[in-house]
Amino acid sequence: LVAVPEDVSETEVRTGDAVGAPLGFVTYAANAGIKDESLDLSIVASETPCVAAGVFTQSLFVGPSVTLCRRHLEDGSARAIVTVSKNANVATGVEGERDAAELAALAAGAVGCPADEVLVGSTGVIGRPYPMERIRGHFRALQRPSTADFPSVARAIMTTDTVPKLASTRVGQATVTGVAKGSGMIEPNMATLLAYVVTDAAVPRNELERVFRSVVDATFNSLSIDTDTSTSDTALVLANGAAGPVAGPELEAALRRVCGSLVLQLAADGEGATKVIEVTAGSAKDIAQAKRVAKSVVNSPLLKSAVHGADPNWGRVIMAIGKCSDETGIVPEAVRVAFGDLEVYPRQLDGDDLAELSEIMRSDIVHIDITLGAGEATATVWGCDLSADYVRINADYTT
Amino acid sequence: LVAVPEDVSETEVRTGDAVGAPLGFVTYAANAGIKDESLDLSIVASETPCVAAGVFTQSLFVGPSVTLCRRHLEDGSARAIVTVSKNANVATGVEGERDAAELAALAAGAVGCPADEVLVGSTGVIGRPYPMERIRGHFRALQRPSTADFPSVARAIMTTDTVPKLASTRVGQATVTGVAKGSGMIEPNMATLLAYVVTDAAVPRNELERVFRSVVDATFNSLSIDTDTSTSDTALVLANGAAGPVAGPELEAALRRVCGSLVLQLAADGEGATKVIEVTAGSAKDIAQAKRVAKSVVNSPLLKSAVHGADPNWGRVIMAIGKCSDETGIVPEAVRVAFGDLEVYPRQLDGDDLAELSEIMRSDIVHIDITLGAGEATATVWGCDLSADYVRINADYTT
Repeated sequence: LVAVPEDVSETEVRTGDAVGAPLGFVTYAANAGIKDESLDLSIVASETPCVAAGVFTQSLFVGPSVTLCRRHLEDGSARAIVTVSKNANVATGVEGERDAAELAALAAGAVGCPADEVLVGSTGVIGRPYPMERIRGHFRALQRPSTADFPSVARAIMTTDTVPKLASTRVGQATVTGVAKGSGMIEPNMATLLAYVVTDAAVPRNELERVFRSVVDATFNSLSIDTDTSTSDTALVLANGAAGPVAGPELEAALRRVCGSLVLQLAADGEGATKVIEVTAGSAKDIAQAKRVAKSVVNSPLLKSAVHGADPNWGRVIMAIGKCSDETGIVPEAVRVAFGDLEVYPRQLDGDDLAELSEIMRSDIVHIDITLGAGEATATVWGCDLSADYVRINADYTT
Repeated sequence: LVAVPEDVSETEVRTGDAVGAPLGFVTYAANAGIKDESLDLSIVASETPCVAAGVFTQSLFVGPSVTLCRRHLEDGSARAIVTVSKNANVATGVEGERDAAELAALAAGAVGCPADEVLVGSTGVIGRPYPMERIRGHFRALQRPSTADFPSVARAIMTTDTVPKLASTRVGQATVTGVAKGSGMIEPNMATLLAYVVTDAAVPRNELERVFRSVVDATFNSLSIDTDTSTSDTALVLANGAAGPVAGPELEAALRRVCGSLVLQLAADGEGATKVIEVTAGSAKDIAQAKRVAKSVVNSPLLKSAVHGADPNWGRVIMAIGKCSDETGIVPEAVRVAFGDLEVYPRQLDGDDLAELSEIMRSDIVHIDITLGAGEATATVWGCDLSADYVRINADYTT
């Protein structure tokens, strides 16, 4: 596994067990016997009401957790997030919808708030009902949470993740703390598998929603592990205001730092990943074009395999740009491609250049810079290499 | 490697060394030292003029071979196809264009026809110039071809292919013979990497072009090994008329048999593949929608990995349908999914069903049938499983 830089800007971002907790939030994490004996049930709750926003999968087969979240967020407020991992509760019919509603009600009882103030996240195998008897039994014995342990929540929402992902930063008097999970089935269309950000900043509901959407677009929506979009992708933000007001731009920058760190952590822990691939496409017609071209490169199985083996086969970047055949304004003559500081196209490379390129491809983070010559827009996306372990992990996931 | 059925319809299709040759065609295959000592230079030529048609990659970075083919096909006629493998001659600038033209001229000299009657195919690494001195030296010593050995041509156009792909069938008094190559970088947008079909049927130029496009769409354009579209995809057909007239519909059926067989051979020999995945999406709004949904399934790395391991994780089909979020008219309630004869959705599966599903996933060809409930159209696409060997093959392709 690669090291992830702790900072994504000048302002400190803490990760791992060093993360801070915003005022007024408590957490719970335990094993409820969903699949095995690992942590699989967790709650993040505010002691006071919060403004809240969410961004969800665009899948045609959304799970009951997502539809419940959308409904409970209509008023822009929420108090708690309850998550079951190891079972996605998707393609489970009306029984699945009832189970999601019951889970929210059980969590509401545990934290002491109305059921429609609880959001639900689920992740795991598709097509199997929750073991509701076990879940009910677990809640009967559950004590009201009173401490904030975000590292345990980050662990409890994991499936095939090998490390928990969490990050926090300070903004004015407030703290922004985020947890996320996901390492396969990751090409979020509107959010990543599960990402929760909580803050004690005071911020108006509309401002929070606008800022969060913009940050999600530049972070989680710019990540792809394997082009596969989950049915359960959910990114949530809760702000309880306990630390007082924070201006919109400062809050946006803080959310960007936290989500940016989480995205690098997610990419580094992509299923089977040994390194992160960061692709920037510049001078595009617009940001959407920049993102489509950059994603075509970061998603190419051939480029991902070449980066895995540090094979200096830069032609695969050309191939991946070329296959964006619906793009307008891109002509081969204007395109330039560099790995790190080494331009590989249109120059002719000699043996020394190829050796240097191979060395660059051995880095923990491989930067690929593309100039399209079609306009002024730029976008960056993140992914990871493709290794034999990705196949091994996914060839026997349910058995 | 899996066994490929010899027949794709009631009418016989011959494959391997048993293929027939149409009247009036000769071939040549040799090593010209392009990269190593394997066959890498080949020619297919008709002794008399042919009507001809081609379908090519939609890549933004088309190689000089493709632009030359388009130019030489403007008059709808051609006599010969010369192919260099192990070097794609792509992203090689004006030098690459000169080299492609010289190669056509050299081949024209060898078979005795004008240079603008020669088509050029190239496949291999991107971004390296042809070794023109070696190629010129080879042609200086070359004798005019006088026999037809299609199995050797099929071998000479291979790169990472492990077996040659060829097929022939009879139609009236005529023979249709095809060769193809490709096992990675395969998601043709308009054609497959390289596929050549020759026939001695007499057919008008416009009819040949129309029929060929329709067949390519239902065969090569319905194949995807890894979503990566080559810069060099080329499908060509030459008809010299030596066996007399054949009616359009009969010729179309014969081309369909030959190309259908080649597609199954290509899928079975996908890089690292151990089995073929065939996905049919039915009751779609239109054929384009059926194809997009079926391709989303056959291209899902998670589904491909599950099939590889015979893991009965049918939920990944649901996920892959779900991620087609731009499709209209598809609602989860109307969708049905079956593996072979076993319906997996919306039924609830028990342990015996999962064991049966796993058994189905051990077949050489895994059939997945999807009913979308959005209309009347149906399409079938082909792909293969994803194995650790795909990564191994592509992690050190150039080194």
